[in-house]
Amino acid sequence: MSLFHPTPDQLQMADVLHALSDPQRLCIVRSLAEDSTPRRCGSFDLDITKSTLTHHFRVLREAGVIDQREEGTARLNSLRREDLDGRFPGLLDAVLAGAPGPVSARSPVTASA
Amino acid sequence: MSLFHPTPDQLQMADVLHALSDPQRLCIVRSLAEDSTPRRCGSFDLDITKSTLTHHFRVLREAGVIDQREEGTARLNSLRREDLDGRFPGLLDAVLAGAPGPVSARSPVTASA
Repeated sequence: MSLFHPTPDQLQMADVLHALSDPQRLCIVRSLAEDSTPRRCGSFDLDITKSTLTHHFRVLREAGVIDQREEGTARLNSLRREDLDGRFPGLLDAVLAGAPGPVSARSPVTASA
Repeated sequence: MSLFHPTPDQLQMADVLHALSDPQRLCIVRSLAEDSTPRRCGSFDLDITKSTLTHHFRVLREAGVIDQREEGTARLNSLRREDLDGRFPGLLDAVLAGAPGPVSARSPVTASA
């Protein structure tokens, strides 16, 4: 079963803003923006449960912010920068410029005490 | 009791995006952007209950998107454009360019059938 992805003309401003309105999702988006190589969900090492992580990726995908492709047992994530820039010019750049830093691969967001 | 308004340096990208991620709040913001004259909450004539409207204005104010000043028994709303543009350059313009049209004063959003 293929994963739902809205087409570019189906993208809604309110959905995209909602998808970007969570600090952890913003971190994911910023990380994907730094490097166009598709990344596995597990490579972000956010300090959250797997189900929460899966939820965040689903929200991003269903809003049209990211593309998810299945490759074997993994899901590879990439930013739909061209679609977003085409539909909402300047939005992603403005959000990325104002959002906190990216999540490095294998680098936890929260320092262990 | 004065209403809570975050200072410019307290504005958080995720909070602002969340405040803007609702179609009705987007309509309110777009309307306020069209005319800098402060407007009463009741002047928007959105087809929603008063309590929902009050909720939307509170979310916008607490995120720092709008300023609310009490004048007698009314609350006057205005957009914090300068604070938003200073903190998140280009964000508001990009959102307004991509959002649906404004709510005219006394012009219902939903046409009566």
